[in-house]
Amino acid sequence: MSNKQEQFLIDFGKRVRELRKEKGLTQENVAKICGFQRPYLSDVERGRRNISAKNMSLLAATLGADLQLEPVE
Amino acid sequence: MSNKQEQFLIDFGKRVRELRKEKGLTQENVAKICGFQRPYLSDVERGRRNISAKNMSLLAATLGADLQLEPVE
Repeated sequence: MSNKQEQFLIDFGKRVRELRKEKGLTQENVAKICGFQRPYLSDVERGRRNISAKNMSLLAATLGADLQLEPVE
Repeated sequence: MSNKQEQFLIDFGKRVRELRKEKGLTQENVAKICGFQRPYLSDVERGRRNISAKNMSLLAATLGADLQLEPVE
């Protein structure tokens, strides 16, 4: 698996943590809303899980965000 | 699984197809670059696969796109 894909998981996890904190939510809060175990969410935030598209969209909705595929300028 | 998550897969797939066509690439071209089977990519484009984050990032890179988590305005 390429470094680029590992880096994507790390960047995605950082963004999740950032948006979660901006909303003043704990990992427990978000995990409960999403129906995740807290350690799973912790792993996602550290880029250690190859999370599925459905779980990504559930997290995005919980954080009031959209996950968009946009051409690089 | 919620309709919202199913809709995300459908929207993501449509966007993949759109960006692929803008680049003048066939499903065969993209599948080969990504190391996917062509029928798998066809399923992804129709929103029928709960694709992993790593495969999403690989597709994004192949299509010259970024996958970004952005707050809804």
